[in-house]
Amino acid sequence: MKKNCIVAQSGGPTAAINASLAGIVQGITDSGYFEHIYGSIHGIQGVIREQFLDLTSSTPEFINQLKCTPAMYLGSCRFKLPNWKDDTDSYKEIFDIFEKMNVGAFFYIGGNDSMDTVDKLSQYAAETGSNIKIAGVPKTIDNDLVCTDHTPGFGSAAKYIAGSIREIAYDTYIYDVESVTIVEIMGRDAGWLTAASVLARNGKNLAPHLIYLPEVAFDEEAFLSDLKNLIKIHQNIIVAVSEGIHDASGAYLSATDAAADKFGHAQLSGAGKYLETLVKNRLGIKVRSVEVNVLQRCAGHMASKTDLDESFELGKKAVQLVQDGKTGFMTTLNRTRNVPYSYELSSVPVCEVANKAKAVPLDWINKEKNNVTEEMVAYLAPLVLGEVPIEYEAGIPKYLDISHLL
Amino acid sequence: MKKNCIVAQSGGPTAAINASLAGIVQGITDSGYFEHIYGSIHGIQGVIREQFLDLTSSTPEFINQLKCTPAMYLGSCRFKLPNWKDDTDSYKEIFDIFEKMNVGAFFYIGGNDSMDTVDKLSQYAAETGSNIKIAGVPKTIDNDLVCTDHTPGFGSAAKYIAGSIREIAYDTYIYDVESVTIVEIMGRDAGWLTAASVLARNGKNLAPHLIYLPEVAFDEEAFLSDLKNLIKIHQNIIVAVSEGIHDASGAYLSATDAAADKFGHAQLSGAGKYLETLVKNRLGIKVRSVEVNVLQRCAGHMASKTDLDESFELGKKAVQLVQDGKTGFMTTLNRTRNVPYSYELSSVPVCEVANKAKAVPLDWINKEKNNVTEEMVAYLAPLVLGEVPIEYEAGIPKYLDISHLL
Repeated sequence: MKKNCIVAQSGGPTAAINASLAGIVQGITDSGYFEHIYGSIHGIQGVIREQFLDLTSSTPEFINQLKCTPAMYLGSCRFKLPNWKDDTDSYKEIFDIFEKMNVGAFFYIGGNDSMDTVDKLSQYAAETGSNIKIAGVPKTIDNDLVCTDHTPGFGSAAKYIAGSIREIAYDTYIYDVESVTIVEIMGRDAGWLTAASVLARNGKNLAPHLIYLPEVAFDEEAFLSDLKNLIKIHQNIIVAVSEGIHDASGAYLSATDAAADKFGHAQLSGAGKYLETLVKNRLGIKVRSVEVNVLQRCAGHMASKTDLDESFELGKKAVQLVQDGKTGFMTTLNRTRNVPYSYELSSVPVCEVANKAKAVPLDWINKEKNNVTEEMVAYLAPLVLGEVPIEYEAGIPKYLDISHLL
Repeated sequence: MKKNCIVAQSGGPTAAINASLAGIVQGITDSGYFEHIYGSIHGIQGVIREQFLDLTSSTPEFINQLKCTPAMYLGSCRFKLPNWKDDTDSYKEIFDIFEKMNVGAFFYIGGNDSMDTVDKLSQYAAETGSNIKIAGVPKTIDNDLVCTDHTPGFGSAAKYIAGSIREIAYDTYIYDVESVTIVEIMGRDAGWLTAASVLARNGKNLAPHLIYLPEVAFDEEAFLSDLKNLIKIHQNIIVAVSEGIHDASGAYLSATDAAADKFGHAQLSGAGKYLETLVKNRLGIKVRSVEVNVLQRCAGHMASKTDLDESFELGKKAVQLVQDGKTGFMTTLNRTRNVPYSYELSSVPVCEVANKAKAVPLDWINKEKNNVTEEMVAYLAPLVLGEVPIEYEAGIPKYLDISHLL
């Protein structure tokens, strides 16, 4: 008798995480390896609550729409499993449900914290002799997972950020008045997304003129000096800053106090606003700040085709590996060439990924710490390539109905 | 001998103002009525400074790219002419340059303040017996010009706002946690853009669940009560608010209890941030605010085809009217039907437009002052229809080079 499988999503939304779900559903539909595909609603919590959507008979049309729908079709959770050595109750509960549902594999699509869940579940399975395969598929706009060249969701967010900054630059250039525009971009600890703003430049449009990443200490005086020098050359200056920029002591440049979320991450807002005030008070130049905010992670209407295609393939790859008997892994992308861009799919033991983070290499940041290097541009360029024609309904982007989450 | 003409743009940027410029260039190219088309750089100031771009030999390809390029190809200014009865110097200077350049017509594309300039210049021309035609073409994302059904630029901004709010809603719906998301939208005095958020709704997706316009007083207690009632039905609530919402006394909801920064200045916070703090303090629900910011006016990548086509036609219409001997007018759109949508082009004496503003009719706001009516939806719906295929270059939207402004 064929086994069933469960798939779930976790962490923050991206424009590409549903593409990985679509890839998993496509892979299983193609192979017929599993009897039923159950989508767990709200990540691992949906397993415990036994809230499932049956995705078994997904049509090609549904799979294609799923691929292009941003955010998370199955919903998310921010649930951290306890260490199974300390507390086996949750694990027993989950695996009892797996057994009851005749589950042969659990696919989890997510970032760092989700890979921690994959790691713990696969450790528990190994410890208890369970034959249930636990597979991880990467996802995060932050691009901070180790062992993979880049992460699904990053390319689309990068495309949206670069496209938006180019449009903000056009908006800014029209006035014959000196101005500074500060664009605050997501990425608490890793500067990949902020670095992606570099792709907005073309021809004589050099925006963003300054780029500040959280990998290096931010020096306010150096920033003001950069601005003073640049304003002599460029009337309208665009500055891209990570939300996580901090001074040499590690203190965030934030107007608000940093509180901690459930995983101990600081909640940030305000680097852009802070610098706006700084420029106004110290230089007296017309200044405004723009927070790209959640739009950068969920703008399905400007997704990268490369990103959605890769995310889809990483989902399919996970199915293939499970069918080959693998467990406790995360699928990965290994870049083999920049121009023309090519990559291979592979996997790593998930324990090598969980709870680690990949920062921007320091030698991809220029000496003055206000720009990125050509190596960074070469790395980023292929990831934003290609557009995804999405359906519009009455003039507004149409995505899959997600009323099962409402 | 044929005369020449000058065209200029003024005010804030939109995704459609270059489409009107393209329409003017197309109209003149088609008729051959003028010898040269000079584009004045930075509005009426470019005339005084004698800074022009020759647009005479524009290719069809250039005109088409111009139509799809957001912001302002010719740059803008915020220059208000003095009253010509008090101070004729600027007028004499401008008309001397017109005469010197053998100018037969001046086309000005812009909003309220620009129509004031058109009005004053045409009054001066009449007073001094000048035969130079002065023509206005409307433009403003705020949709607050009188005498026209709607304004170029509004439809594209409306489309971007509704599309973005739908994507923000998808982003929000994934979590199984009560939340409120407040989206702050441009439009200090007129609520048209905030009202356009209603087009994000589809099927069971009712976001934005609450809409607050600046045409009516905002009542904080009623707002909190609305939220308390709605959160029992909808786990994730999206609220659209105009940046200009104010209390019954007319005081804006901003810059009140925000913390002081390290310079000791109170951080000026917008309506969204203000309400975020209010909800957090009074209801204790997870809450965030999103400011759509300048992206709503310059997002050429999600422009409304209806808007760009109409903007183009309004430009062409101005050329036709000038050729017919008219002066001192603004071209207008008269809607003749909602479904299927149709309109006629016309014009009004610009003195009827200048320095007036059109607010949302109060009977298009519901009794509870937290939503718009079906009449508003019927009015808005046609304006966002149609997509404009834009060119991408290395994965990022490609627009006309504007290095002449840098």
